Amino acid sequence: MKVVKASIIGFGSIGQGVAKSLLMKKDYLKMEGIEIAVVAVTDSKGAVVDENGVDLDACLKRKAETGTVAGKSHLGMTGLDVIQKIPHDLVIEVTPTDIVTGGAGLLNMKAALQSKKHVVTSNKGPLTIQFKELQDLAKRNNVEFKYEATVGGAMPIINLMTDIMAGNDIKSVKGIFNGTCNYILTRMYEEKSGYSEILTEAVDLGIAETDPSYDVEGIDTACKVVILANSVFGMNKTIQDVERTGITHVTYEALEMSARSGKTIKLIGEVRKDGRLSVAPRLVPIGHPLSVSGTLNVAAIQTDLAGEITVTGKGAGSLETASSILSDILSIYRNDCVSKNVN
Amino acid sequence: MKVVKASIIGFGSIGQGVAKSLLMKKDYLKMEGIEIAVVAVTDSKGAVVDENGVDLDACLKRKAETGTVAGKSHLGMTGLDVIQKIPHDLVIEVTPTDIVTGGAGLLNMKAALQSKKHVVTSNKGPLTIQFKELQDLAKRNNVEFKYEATVGGAMPIINLMTDIMAGNDIKSVKGIFNGTCNYILTRMYEEKSGYSEILTEAVDLGIAETDPSYDVEGIDTACKVVILANSVFGMNKTIQDVERTGITHVTYEALEMSARSGKTIKLIGEVRKDGRLSVAPRLVPIGHPLSVSGTLNVAAIQTDLAGEITVTGKGAGSLETASSILSDILSIYRNDCVSKNVN
Repeated sequence: MKVVKASIIGFGSIGQGVAKSLLMKKDYLKMEGIEIAVVAVTDSKGAVVDENGVDLDACLKRKAETGTVAGKSHLGMTGLDVIQKIPHDLVIEVTPTDIVTGGAGLLNMKAALQSKKHVVTSNKGPLTIQFKELQDLAKRNNVEFKYEATVGGAMPIINLMTDIMAGNDIKSVKGIFNGTCNYILTRMYEEKSGYSEILTEAVDLGIAETDPSYDVEGIDTACKVVILANSVFGMNKTIQDVERTGITHVTYEALEMSARSGKTIKLIGEVRKDGRLSVAPRLVPIGHPLSVSGTLNVAAIQTDLAGEITVTGKGAGSLETASSILSDILSIYRNDCVSKNVN
Repeated sequence: MKVVKASIIGFGSIGQGVAKSLLMKKDYLKMEGIEIAVVAVTDSKGAVVDENGVDLDACLKRKAETGTVAGKSHLGMTGLDVIQKIPHDLVIEVTPTDIVTGGAGLLNMKAALQSKKHVVTSNKGPLTIQFKELQDLAKRNNVEFKYEATVGGAMPIINLMTDIMAGNDIKSVKGIFNGTCNYILTRMYEEKSGYSEILTEAVDLGIAETDPSYDVEGIDTACKVVILANSVFGMNKTIQDVERTGITHVTYEALEMSARSGKTIKLIGEVRKDGRLSVAPRLVPIGHPLSVSGTLNVAAIQTDLAGEITVTGKGAGSLETASSILSDILSIYRNDCVSKNVN
C-alpha cells in the first residue's frame, strides 16, 4: 500500500467535494493500492492539521456548522504555511480563481512545486498567468503538475488529449467551456426571450453570478482556451492573446433565424494549432456534437488520424469537479513506476 | 529506445490503416522512446516476413498492385504460423470479425497470448464469444490484451472509462455504436423517406453492406454492448444475453412525430450495472449529447461523481480505427515500468 500524504488547500464547494469523494472512494483507492492521508485542510480562516490524517467527516461537519474547517489551535494558518511547514507529498490546490494576479493559488502552487510536492488543481488563475513557469518548476523538481479540473469541470479533456488521443496530431480544439452562457442561450430560444430576462432567471437559479460579466463577456471561456493552448499545444499564451466576444449582443431573433436554417448559436472557444485563440458566438448545426443544450460543456478535438472526437460533460459542480481531481491523483500514483516497483 | 517487434495479422482496410499510421507516426513514436519494427504482415493469401522489419511502404504498394502483401517465398503462410514461429512482442490482430465461431482471430489471439505476446485488436468476434478466457489468458501470461478499436472505431470509450474516468463508479453506458443505423435514421428524417429507400442509398454509398442485417438488426451494436459489459463492468456475457430490436420497423412517420415533441429516434445499445443488456430504437431529446446525426458513434457514460459524460467520434474508417490501435500500443509501452527503468 502506497500511503500518500496530501493537503487540501481551499475548502469551498470544490474542496468539500474533494473531501467527500475521498471518503466515498476510500475502498476503491485501497483496491488500487493507494491510501490518501489528508494531513491538512485549510480555508480562508485557518487550518486543521494532523500528520496521521485529519478526520474528513469531522472537517465537513465543522465547516457546515461553524463556517470554517479550522480548529482553534490553527486559526490564521494559511495554505502557504501548510505547504511550507507540514511534510507531505501532494497539494490539492482548490482556492478561488483570481485571473488578475493569480492570487494565493499562484503562491501556493509555486511553493508546493519548489518543495517537491505534486500539485493537482482546479484553480484557473495561476495557469492563465504563469503556465509555463509552473510547468517548468514541476519539471525541474521532478514532480507532477495536473489540472484536468481547470477546464470543463467533470468533462475529461486535457488527459483525454494527452493520454488517450496520444499519437494523434491535434489541429484544433473548440467547444463550449462555460455552462452559464450555454444555459442562457438555450433558455433564450426555448422561452422566446431576450438576454436580460434569461440572465435574471439564471441569477435567481444560482447559475449566473450577480455580476455575470466574467461569464457572459467570455472571460472564463478565454481562460480555458489559454490553458488548453499552453497545456495541449505547448504554447505560451495569456488571456490578452485571445480574440474575445461575449454573448451580451445575441438576440432571440438571431437564435430564431438560425434555427430556421437548422442551426443554433453557442459561445465557442477555440485554439488552433497556428496559434489563433478566439472566443465568440458561432453558428453550430443542430445534430452536430457541439450543439448540446443547458449548462453542459463540450469540446470537439480535430485530429489527423481519428478525425473529430467530441466529449461532453458537466462543466461545474462540487463532486463533478472532484471527479477530475481524483482522476489526476490516480494518474500520478497509478503510473508511478518507482512506487509500483518499490511497494 | 525501446524496440518493439510487432506483427500485423490481417491486411484489409484496418491493417493497411495501421501500416499507414505507423509510417506517419514514426518520428512521434521515436520521441516517445519507441520504435515499432513490424517483423511480419499477413493477409488471407500469405505473409511477408523480415526479422529486421519489413518495408511497410512496399507492403502497401504490393497489396494495391497484386491484391496480397505476401512475397513469393511466404505464400500460404498464415497469421497463426507467424504468431507461433516468428519471435516478436506484439500482435496487432485485425482480421475480419466472425461472431459465430470467432474465426481465425480467436485462434490467433489465443496463440499470441499463450506465447506471451501482447495483443492489440479491432476484431470483435473473439471478444463477444470468449472475452473472459482471453482476458484470463493475458493475465496468466503477464501480457496486455487491448481492444479499444472494437467499440466505436476512433471514438475513445474503453480506455476513457478504465483510465480517465478511474475513481468513478459507472452505473450504465448507452450509445449509438453503429454508424450505418445512425446514417439511415438521420437520412430517413431529412429526406422524408421510408427505411427501404434510404437503405438502398446507404448500400450505393458503401455505408451499408449488400446484406445489411448484421447492422440493421442490431447485431453489430449487440456485439459492442457485450464487449463493454465484459471489459468495463467485469461481466461474463455473450450476444445471447442481449435483448435486441433493430431499426427495420422504424418509419418516417415515427421520426416525424418524435421531432414534433423535440425528440429523435436512435438505435441505442445499453449496458446497465444490474446486468441488463439491450439494443433498441429509443427516443432521444434533440440537443441531448446522444442526438448526433450521420454516421457518428456516441456513448453516454453514467457515473456517480462526474454525472453523465458523453463521447462522440467516427465509428469506422481505416485511419480512424488505426488511431485507437495506436493509442492502445502507446498505453502498453508508455506505462511499461520495466522497460522504462531498464532502457
